[in-house]
Amino acid sequence: MSSKVGIIGVGMTKFGELWDRRYRDLIVDAGVDAIKDAGIEGNQIGGMYVGSMSPGLFAEQEHVSALVADYSGLAGIPATRVEAACASGGVALREAYLAVKSGEMDIVVAGGVEKMTDVPTGSAAVALMGAGDQEWEAFKGATFPSLYALMARRHMVEYGTTIEQISQVAVKSHDNASLNENAHYGFKVTLEQVMNSSMVADPLRILHCSGITDGAATVILASEEKAKELVDDPVWIKASALATDTIALHDRKSLSKTEATVLAARKAYKDAEIKPEDVDFAEVHDAFSIAEILAIEALDFCDFGEGGKLTQQGETALKGRIPINPSGGLKGKGHPVGATGIAQAIEAVLQIRGKAGDRQVKGAETGLIHNVGGSGATCVIHILSMEK
Amino acid sequence: MSSKVGIIGVGMTKFGELWDRRYRDLIVDAGVDAIKDAGIEGNQIGGMYVGSMSPGLFAEQEHVSALVADYSGLAGIPATRVEAACASGGVALREAYLAVKSGEMDIVVAGGVEKMTDVPTGSAAVALMGAGDQEWEAFKGATFPSLYALMARRHMVEYGTTIEQISQVAVKSHDNASLNENAHYGFKVTLEQVMNSSMVADPLRILHCSGITDGAATVILASEEKAKELVDDPVWIKASALATDTIALHDRKSLSKTEATVLAARKAYKDAEIKPEDVDFAEVHDAFSIAEILAIEALDFCDFGEGGKLTQQGETALKGRIPINPSGGLKGKGHPVGATGIAQAIEAVLQIRGKAGDRQVKGAETGLIHNVGGSGATCVIHILSMEK
Repeated sequence: MSSKVGIIGVGMTKFGELWDRRYRDLIVDAGVDAIKDAGIEGNQIGGMYVGSMSPGLFAEQEHVSALVADYSGLAGIPATRVEAACASGGVALREAYLAVKSGEMDIVVAGGVEKMTDVPTGSAAVALMGAGDQEWEAFKGATFPSLYALMARRHMVEYGTTIEQISQVAVKSHDNASLNENAHYGFKVTLEQVMNSSMVADPLRILHCSGITDGAATVILASEEKAKELVDDPVWIKASALATDTIALHDRKSLSKTEATVLAARKAYKDAEIKPEDVDFAEVHDAFSIAEILAIEALDFCDFGEGGKLTQQGETALKGRIPINPSGGLKGKGHPVGATGIAQAIEAVLQIRGKAGDRQVKGAETGLIHNVGGSGATCVIHILSMEK
Repeated sequence: MSSKVGIIGVGMTKFGELWDRRYRDLIVDAGVDAIKDAGIEGNQIGGMYVGSMSPGLFAEQEHVSALVADYSGLAGIPATRVEAACASGGVALREAYLAVKSGEMDIVVAGGVEKMTDVPTGSAAVALMGAGDQEWEAFKGATFPSLYALMARRHMVEYGTTIEQISQVAVKSHDNASLNENAHYGFKVTLEQVMNSSMVADPLRILHCSGITDGAATVILASEEKAKELVDDPVWIKASALATDTIALHDRKSLSKTEATVLAARKAYKDAEIKPEDVDFAEVHDAFSIAEILAIEALDFCDFGEGGKLTQQGETALKGRIPINPSGGLKGKGHPVGATGIAQAIEAVLQIRGKAGDRQVKGAETGLIHNVGGSGATCVIHILSMEK
């Protein structure tokens, strides 16, 4: 067993509508970059986890673990696909972490990938709604914008959160994305543009919703011994926490508090032996702008009901008290669902290495990454730090 | 970290066309039985792994990890779905094993489930062929019977294996299944019936192919300390090995040798510190009858090319030298794909406990279970034993 697990290499594709790259090309491209970044050879890799939400519906391809190992030139190694809807990438990171911790493997790849464009619209709709409850939500006509709209409306009623505050999340995400060359939507938007964009599910408009994106991301994990031997700057995983909630929104105790995030955060802070105020920046799951407000409250960066104000006051901006989504988040960077959780880890590693360029958070030593499946039924959180 | 991991409880549904049970009902039924068998309470469970191949295509439902935790009354706990086509169940067992070994959890459920009937035929066909290479096999019109037919034909050409020998696998599977009350196809068939059944993909006939089945199976794993504390008869997992091969059949070095099984078996025997002759019985992945012959050769129960003869001589029957598939195998018991790997573990536990009833293998102390994804691109093997 390895007492500590470090990230020694990262690689990702640009996120976007990548018409010239297939599913299998995307993840191999990201993997090659991560291997180069770690300075290792492919044959040093002892195992692989692939996070992907719905290749069956998006690409008529299951069994992507073997597919990716094969197309990476690594057929033979243990390879496993994991899925937890939009949290599939975060869960892949966690399974790779557990595999290293178990002592069964010492260098393990965790990749995430989704090819969401170039698929029939019907299949894509079924795939995405597959993250919710098929019988009680999908079959009744609910869509993810509508589920998050219910949460947004409830937050507005309970706490007086305003649509301006929710919209400011998107403005900030795009500001940050404009500094990220891998972002799908790397342009700025104004508050007026967000608030006047097309209505999707009242009160959520198109610029409150993440888009449909292709992309892949890969990180390489190593045991403490291997990490120190191979690189000068491993970023350590200080905590890995996964929690669940009811799959259907209507079964929850509250629509305005995401209980799985509360549970996972509590465990993550405890395992990492830190407090929320020790976190220097966070990548959170802003699939819809309201989701970022729900996240920063459940992560205890502010009290419940204060997330909208914190955003409006600029405290979550790049130079604020607790920068949220320096990468541009799901809204600005894009949200190829299976890749998102791994891309969050990559942003955290770059920030902690001090290599995040124009979007570098000053004094970024400890980062938290927060990946959500469905309307909050899965939450996976990791805390990363350069410190030993 | 737990140095040893034991199985402390098992439960499964009957396999069959279960029109009155939904996907979510099946796995909860199996889980409740396993909890009762272990004599624990649900709130003692620290985590859950769900193996399921293609709920997205079969049931328009992804995110089944959260779904199953929720419907088990365990929303909150860490839950993860894993997938490796028809090896999804075996991979769930392995991830649960690694999670306990990592020291992060001490009681973990591994479940497998598939609802394959009551779905549109087109979706089912796409789902099943998703286990192969979409671009090089599915898109060109290959089906799984046709891929295994190529392997069968090659084995016949290289080694002189006869269709009688291949057919005898099915006869034996049904003989054993007739002693298993949970079997989908619990009736005997004669050699003549198998050899005169409808042709599917020459030389494979319908009675050489596993059917379309609903079902679920669950086992509960515990750390050494917890296992000894909770039950009198834990069955220890002595080895867990996973290996991959090219996803497409045409890229393999050989059509008559399953390289992923060779690799996984080598590691499993090494980790368990045993030799093939120390195995008292095995559950192997006979999705097609030729696959059992390929398996017993790659597992080194006989030389390559001798699997057909071994079967014909009765050595793999219940009272033979090395009983294979005492449960009835995938052919006789049924093959609800995600559930299969866990059902194999359950049969091994029952045999090792000496509780397998009329199909009890005499002196069953050490069992091997062998679960395959696709045409052999994933192979996961576990060795179980009562011995410490």
